[in-house]
Amino acid sequence: MPYISIPWDLIDSFIMDVFSGYGIPEEDARICADVLLESDRRGIESHGLNRLKPIYLDRIKENIQSPVTLFEVIKEGPATAVVDGHDGMGQVVGVKSMRMAIAKAKRHGLGMVAATNSTHYGIAGYYATMATEEGCIGITGTNARPSIAPTFGIDNMLGTNPLTFGIPTDEPFDFVLDCATSIVQRGTIEAWARNGLSTPEGTVIEEDGSPMTDSEEILTALVKGTAALAPLGGIGEELAGYKGYGYATVVEILCSALQNGLFMKGLTGVGEDGGKRKFHLGHFFIAIDVEAFIPLEVFKKTAGDILRALRNSRKAPGHDRIYTAGEKEYLAWMERKDTGVLVNEGVQRELAAIRDELGLTRYRFPFED
Amino acid sequence: MPYISIPWDLIDSFIMDVFSGYGIPEEDARICADVLLESDRRGIESHGLNRLKPIYLDRIKENIQSPVTLFEVIKEGPATAVVDGHDGMGQVVGVKSMRMAIAKAKRHGLGMVAATNSTHYGIAGYYATMATEEGCIGITGTNARPSIAPTFGIDNMLGTNPLTFGIPTDEPFDFVLDCATSIVQRGTIEAWARNGLSTPEGTVIEEDGSPMTDSEEILTALVKGTAALAPLGGIGEELAGYKGYGYATVVEILCSALQNGLFMKGLTGVGEDGGKRKFHLGHFFIAIDVEAFIPLEVFKKTAGDILRALRNSRKAPGHDRIYTAGEKEYLAWMERKDTGVLVNEGVQRELAAIRDELGLTRYRFPFED
Repeated sequence: MPYISIPWDLIDSFIMDVFSGYGIPEEDARICADVLLESDRRGIESHGLNRLKPIYLDRIKENIQSPVTLFEVIKEGPATAVVDGHDGMGQVVGVKSMRMAIAKAKRHGLGMVAATNSTHYGIAGYYATMATEEGCIGITGTNARPSIAPTFGIDNMLGTNPLTFGIPTDEPFDFVLDCATSIVQRGTIEAWARNGLSTPEGTVIEEDGSPMTDSEEILTALVKGTAALAPLGGIGEELAGYKGYGYATVVEILCSALQNGLFMKGLTGVGEDGGKRKFHLGHFFIAIDVEAFIPLEVFKKTAGDILRALRNSRKAPGHDRIYTAGEKEYLAWMERKDTGVLVNEGVQRELAAIRDELGLTRYRFPFED
Repeated sequence: MPYISIPWDLIDSFIMDVFSGYGIPEEDARICADVLLESDRRGIESHGLNRLKPIYLDRIKENIQSPVTLFEVIKEGPATAVVDGHDGMGQVVGVKSMRMAIAKAKRHGLGMVAATNSTHYGIAGYYATMATEEGCIGITGTNARPSIAPTFGIDNMLGTNPLTFGIPTDEPFDFVLDCATSIVQRGTIEAWARNGLSTPEGTVIEEDGSPMTDSEEILTALVKGTAALAPLGGIGEELAGYKGYGYATVVEILCSALQNGLFMKGLTGVGEDGGKRKFHLGHFFIAIDVEAFIPLEVFKKTAGDILRALRNSRKAPGHDRIYTAGEKEYLAWMERKDTGVLVNEGVQRELAAIRDELGLTRYRFPFED
């Protein structure tokens, strides 16, 4: 059986111990575990437990990411700040940066923080939701290893660069649009590869212009630079791929130019000697305090009315439901909140190996019974 | 011959006289003429002179838009404001709002203005460029008559809702991504209709799910609600149409919920009696002062380096050039700055008729020779 559920309290405790075992201070481990597992809670398998080993633990071991996060404010104004994460944990940089942005928004109406020398920060939607929970609109983006080709190009130049918005509503779930500016992003292809699934044709182009569909081959080719993701809108201009390309470029600039950080080919994670090197990622975080414009409850009702009207509009033939952003993630949580996180066989093996490596002998997983 | 050039000084003087003739105060007419003609300068035919009569003059005549713009600040904080345009000229609301946002950004690092009871504000990129010219990143959006169907839906629910970014660079032209969150927007289809061109298949769906291509029929069907535009990313989820749908929703919310304004089906411009009524559009304007984060020249160089690297990357088979946002508009201006604005026969007839209606007998156009 490929997928097995692990209860939330068990996996949370385990992840806390794993992060602590890798040298992350407890307060920061709490943040990292919460960001990681929130991805699984939302059903975003691509950014959850399957990233624990390759994206966080391995990188700490390889010394390209520090388990201790020195969060330094290097420039600050009333509504703005530039912070340096000193290659610590991206989730810690993210949470502390968005907290700053929210605090500034609460005082001045708006807040924005640009972060440099960070690392992979997990799901962008986590930070957007931090804002919505405080009555703010949250906007965030991050750069990433280059993957997207510009319109009319074939080189993987831009990261999948999410441009993410969170908006408070009067519904049980807030509006959270957490998406890459490519058609699909690396994490999705990683999940497809882990599950032996192919990638839909038309979302990835090889350097000779032909489409690629083998997910494992795509991941390798993306790193080698012999393939690239298409931007949202697709290849060429016919379906307006230049728009997705444009939004990816906006995120690339906002994540580097505000703090003189690295960008595009500087973010491959591979040094001139071919060895792994620090990523030095950049992020930005914007919080807009709704109360600076209008009473929060009035805002939430309008936003909710818009979303309800969208869902209640007429369905296309063959479809019986229209979703709004954040709804599927909420439904995923409703479905799994009482049963636990679903993990595939590859992740099961990784979790057991990490447990054994750290000697966390008190943990035994359901898939071992 | 379908297109004729009119010298810039002639058309500028004429448009000023036309707007004044329609009761717009001189200072505001200057703004309206500048926003309108900037569209033509950038080669964006869809939002330029061909909108003069149907979108501005006719609406003033029909009393659904006021030539005099009462710009009222109804709530203000250090970095934020809500303004009411009292159904005046959208361009005046837009320019005054972005000026406020920029002034606030210069003092506090960030500024944001939400506008209600406005009207069509022309090209969103104009306001983004106002910000870049002051060393700011500019972000703006507007709602509009409903046109886009949500993913899995067929009703035209959302406006084409541009989500527009302007970013200063060290190049002769700034980065300006001025685009609708649909694949194409009304203005483009209007231009196609004027020029007798059809609309590419796949960008518009009829309520029975079939594609529409007749541009005139599409415009009518969009108003009637029997067809809808596809969001960026296309119909369904395969190429991630839910992302374009999500961005359109973000703009819809930001343009109404911050000021308790109308949205979606409230913006048809048609009352319950079937007659025309005021649009009560909403916009938002964000300015981010680069100097609050980093010296402007450093920022501009990084942004320019990113754009140059994109343009210099390898080209797809069959293409010899990669563009960055704002470049084609700059090239359009370079091409026409010495010759004038190109107008098609339909617009030529409109300009002559407006001239005759207002008795502006001193104007004679090149197409009349």
